[in-house]
Amino acid sequence: MHVKPSRRLGEFALIETLVAPLAAGAPGAFGLRDDAATLAVPSSCELVVTTDAVIEGVHFLRDDPPALVARKALGVNLSDLAAKGAVPEGYLLALCIPAWVGDPWLEEFAAGLAEDQRRFAIHLLGGDTTSTPGPLTLAITAMGTVRRGCTLRRAGAQPGDRVFVTGTIGDAGGGLAVLKGEAGAVSGGDREFLIGRYRVPSPRVALGPKLIGHASAALDVSDGLLADLAHIADVSAVRIVVEAARVPLSPALRRLWGEGDAAVKRAASAGDDYEIAFTAPPGVRVPLENAAATAGVPIHEIGRVENGSGVAFLGRDGRDIEIERPGYTHF
Amino acid sequence: MHVKPSRRLGEFALIETLVAPLAAGAPGAFGLRDDAATLAVPSSCELVVTTDAVIEGVHFLRDDPPALVARKALGVNLSDLAAKGAVPEGYLLALCIPAWVGDPWLEEFAAGLAEDQRRFAIHLLGGDTTSTPGPLTLAITAMGTVRRGCTLRRAGAQPGDRVFVTGTIGDAGGGLAVLKGEAGAVSGGDREFLIGRYRVPSPRVALGPKLIGHASAALDVSDGLLADLAHIADVSAVRIVVEAARVPLSPALRRLWGEGDAAVKRAASAGDDYEIAFTAPPGVRVPLENAAATAGVPIHEIGRVENGSGVAFLGRDGRDIEIERPGYTHF
Repeated sequence: MHVKPSRRLGEFALIETLVAPLAAGAPGAFGLRDDAATLAVPSSCELVVTTDAVIEGVHFLRDDPPALVARKALGVNLSDLAAKGAVPEGYLLALCIPAWVGDPWLEEFAAGLAEDQRRFAIHLLGGDTTSTPGPLTLAITAMGTVRRGCTLRRAGAQPGDRVFVTGTIGDAGGGLAVLKGEAGAVSGGDREFLIGRYRVPSPRVALGPKLIGHASAALDVSDGLLADLAHIADVSAVRIVVEAARVPLSPALRRLWGEGDAAVKRAASAGDDYEIAFTAPPGVRVPLENAAATAGVPIHEIGRVENGSGVAFLGRDGRDIEIERPGYTHF
Repeated sequence: MHVKPSRRLGEFALIETLVAPLAAGAPGAFGLRDDAATLAVPSSCELVVTTDAVIEGVHFLRDDPPALVARKALGVNLSDLAAKGAVPEGYLLALCIPAWVGDPWLEEFAAGLAEDQRRFAIHLLGGDTTSTPGPLTLAITAMGTVRRGCTLRRAGAQPGDRVFVTGTIGDAGGGLAVLKGEAGAVSGGDREFLIGRYRVPSPRVALGPKLIGHASAALDVSDGLLADLAHIADVSAVRIVVEAARVPLSPALRRLWGEGDAAVKRAASAGDDYEIAFTAPPGVRVPLENAAATAGVPIHEIGRVENGSGVAFLGRDGRDIEIERPGYTHF
């Protein structure tokens, strides 16, 4: 932990009061009072690491609830680990704090981290706190473990495999549309559900490790279902065919956007789902369904893997639907 | 690697062209074409992890050479690993890019990373690229390995131990004073040396692992020598006495600030040294000196550890010098 004194609570005091308790359960964090943390990786395992930054004005808004910002920053990283089959072990946090962030914001932020630490049985291992003249920026590095050689990858999908996705698709995109006032009439319950799905990912930590031994390829859906499946198709050198009628949409999203091919296309082109998309041979459907039931995470078969390249998106009439903008473009 | 399409080179193209080659030597990085990276940690070792962010306008300036910004961002993290005795293995990079950053900047930045990857025998393991409306922000997480249970800590200094520091102290502070125009006349060679020491840390990667078995406590000097030794004193529950006359100042800094107690105090209160300060029992001086010679890193004995608390700074007359501002305050 690289910290310096401060105004406000004082940065050292801030670390002591708000952040250090987040590391209390990790002996290798040394109470955040050292330059670095240690982590023991069991000799049967390999380490899986990922980093994602979230930025005010890009990934969240200044008046978003601080606890939800914390949970989003952590969740997008845990989602990457889950999609690789990893059991999360801990995380590091680089916190770049602008002047507008006060102690109450930080208190709620730390409470959000604490809540998801309990939910996912992980601890803060270390981090860095610094001032910034720019937007609030949080970079998290999450670490997990997988049995050696078993990490799920984007490579590995084979012709004949089936394509699956967890949960429902497009809710976050719907939530963003509601927040932007682009949606029509929406009930209070649907509004809350969709915005919640936009603001806080539900990383599929309970299911990810159970996919090992069954899934042939996997990734987390963050750029949009079709764009992300294109990554699997690309790295695995296969063609992926998705049937619009089988893409799972939530009741709330169906009420918002309908359930025709156009609605599914919109849902499958929106980002921030943080579901797991994966491929698996047809013979493992039963153990997969058992794993999903045990984890309490719904899975849906949405298509198949073929020889070829790219992603095809089939409408209810069996014809290709053109995909002109498969995912969120960042720059 | 969580990436999205873009303008400019296009973010995907950018990753392919500039960033992916940095990961070519790390099989677990999967060419940056997956959600996460894997790292095999030998069963005899524990993982050591640290994260530090550097921000335009806080830790570097917009017109600083991009290669030096890269090397600073990496160096401050490698310095933390070195101070813990860790052999660096790899790093992750979260890159938050504002609109003013163009492809030429990114090319020079990647070249700087490549240079230090060769120097320190490490590879990029993964990362995240995103746009930001604010200052250029780079968060690096560095990972290394140490024999299990041997990671050097801030805790462990014992009364009777001697206090050592690598290299010279205060050069970065002098370089910053020169850059700010606060210094008087300074020769071109001294100017270049001091500014270089401010802009690019020389992480003591060659020495750190050799301190294991000899040093009782260690940290990297980033906040200022006296402030950082206060951390060791605090966590180890000892008193540290530093003799001003023994603190190593470079010839260039002595020409800039002189070599009296006031100059040493200024040097020992400046930050960004990225040297290693450590304690060790008197009996290990010979193996320590041999280790330092082998690593090609000079070390100097600057004081002793006593019963008590805090840091005392003794002038040439043997009296305590008051320390009113021991380190850089960030907020």
